[in-house]
Amino acid sequence: MAGATEYEVTGMTCGHCEGAVRAEVLKVDGVTSVDVSAETGRLVVTSDQSVDDDAVIAAVDEAGYAAVRS
Amino acid sequence: MAGATEYEVTGMTCGHCEGAVRAEVLKVDGVTSVDVSAETGRLVVTSDQSVDDDAVIAAVDEAGYAAVRS
Repeated sequence: MAGATEYEVTGMTCGHCEGAVRAEVLKVDGVTSVDVSAETGRLVVTSDQSVDDDAVIAAVDEAGYAAVRS
Repeated sequence: MAGATEYEVTGMTCGHCEGAVRAEVLKVDGVTSVDVSAETGRLVVTSDQSVDDDAVIAAVDEAGYAAVRS
């Protein structure tokens, strides 16, 4: 759905990890912005159209981390 | 000097950090290979000619970390 969706990501330790997650999630269709914190593990995905949770979770996996919808 | 020189790097937490240090240190004149571990903080720089410690330490600083000759 459009709007902001939150996920919990495990395994990030630093700004490089945040950057890797951000870069992959930004490739997902419909995603307009990504806010991610290694410190809290919080990932907030903002979109202007319907975004598939599975696509976001797959993008995080591609970056090397695990995400669940929170 | 040519050969292998060891440094202690603080602040690295993951493979991305290792990659950032490796990429910067490989740019230093004379450096032929770099072995770096976030787990141990150990950085081993191999060179085929004289390498300036200050240049290696500056390269690590450029990557966002602090190094001292060990």
